[in-house]
Amino acid sequence: MKKAVCLFSGGLDSTTTLYVARQYGYTVLALTIYYGQCHACEIEAARVIARDLGIEHQVIELSLPWKGSALLDTDLSIPVGRSEAEMNQCIPPTYVPARNSIFLSMAASYAEARCAESLFIGVNAVDYSGYPDCRPEYLAAFDHVIRLGTKAGTEGKIIRIEAPLLMMNKKDIVLWGKSLGVPFEKTWSCYRGGKAPCGECDSCQLRAKGFREAGIPDPLEIYASSGH
Amino acid sequence: MKKAVCLFSGGLDSTTTLYVARQYGYTVLALTIYYGQCHACEIEAARVIARDLGIEHQVIELSLPWKGSALLDTDLSIPVGRSEAEMNQCIPPTYVPARNSIFLSMAASYAEARCAESLFIGVNAVDYSGYPDCRPEYLAAFDHVIRLGTKAGTEGKIIRIEAPLLMMNKKDIVLWGKSLGVPFEKTWSCYRGGKAPCGECDSCQLRAKGFREAGIPDPLEIYASSGH
Repeated sequence: MKKAVCLFSGGLDSTTTLYVARQYGYTVLALTIYYGQCHACEIEAARVIARDLGIEHQVIELSLPWKGSALLDTDLSIPVGRSEAEMNQCIPPTYVPARNSIFLSMAASYAEARCAESLFIGVNAVDYSGYPDCRPEYLAAFDHVIRLGTKAGTEGKIIRIEAPLLMMNKKDIVLWGKSLGVPFEKTWSCYRGGKAPCGECDSCQLRAKGFREAGIPDPLEIYASSGH
Repeated sequence: MKKAVCLFSGGLDSTTTLYVARQYGYTVLALTIYYGQCHACEIEAARVIARDLGIEHQVIELSLPWKGSALLDTDLSIPVGRSEAEMNQCIPPTYVPARNSIFLSMAASYAEARCAESLFIGVNAVDYSGYPDCRPEYLAAFDHVIRLGTKAGTEGKIIRIEAPLLMMNKKDIVLWGKSLGVPFEKTWSCYRGGKAPCGECDSCQLRAKGFREAGIPDPLEIYASSGH
């Protein structure tokens, strides 16, 4: 059976991506990377979802001591209440230096070691925070790196980067996730590590927009408001 | 003063590269990545050299649980006695899946977080083991990834990959290192984690070739033969 490594943070997008990979017929090797993020509860979300699916799941610990991001450094503020126009205009301090390159290189290593033919990542370049490493041209460049820089690539065994959500809006991601049975209530998207999502950071706002436009209530919000 | 991140394993090539970066006038941020290699004594070599130079040195622990290389898995044999022709013909089992992509992405992250303008790596595509991620075309592809996938890159602040040894033979590397005062006796190149270099693995053979052709005795061999 064909195998795929799936970068899996436990958020809405990466969980939907993981379900897409399964729908495509892949045996999924889920890969979660803890890189020192303050909102480490997403790791726990990933563990629960992977365990409930009964899939193979690697969690790699890799703290980035140089920080340089509001996701890594509690001294830096996570922006709240940014409008969509603001998200499209400037890269926020939640950007983590070269994060997706670290993720993709780790995933490529895992994929090559396990003879997986694809590597799924839940990046999105439509309803997103403006991160440079979520854009199609970046993924194409990394695809080239994998082709040239791996033994598999030089032998013609392509490890393809698959980013099924890349050009979708959040509404359609929510609808696709729903159709695939994604357990939204177990996912975690908020950049802050609170007990309930803050509702104000870019990630919460984009998620809320998706559920609102899809006409589906976000179960996390229901849980939060009922005190769970 | 201009800063550079230098990937630094404690071997002959990366130590020479670090000395080159200093000669070029950079304040060097040395970065050593422990990725689960059996020959972890190179980490200790790196610590000693960095300490003696009094430079900033980060050691990141990042075990790759999927192994897939003779450097990570003691069940796999490290090839010995390979001829130069064999080294040029096939990629050996000491290849670590996507290792240089992991190294370069970590280094790019560090460089961006610390506003360094260059990133030095001691790869060599002449006297080497045939690893695909040591070739010029691979480095060019990764350069493109850094440009597209970092905030710095999108703002026109180039983080340049510098590989000063890329097209040199081992003899010239040894001679350059000698002229720069590289403490060869503190470096570690052997793939095996013994007390003295094995003299038989690709890395030992290439090192010996360099010293022999440069007409310089390798101080490590003298130490080994005198029982130090």
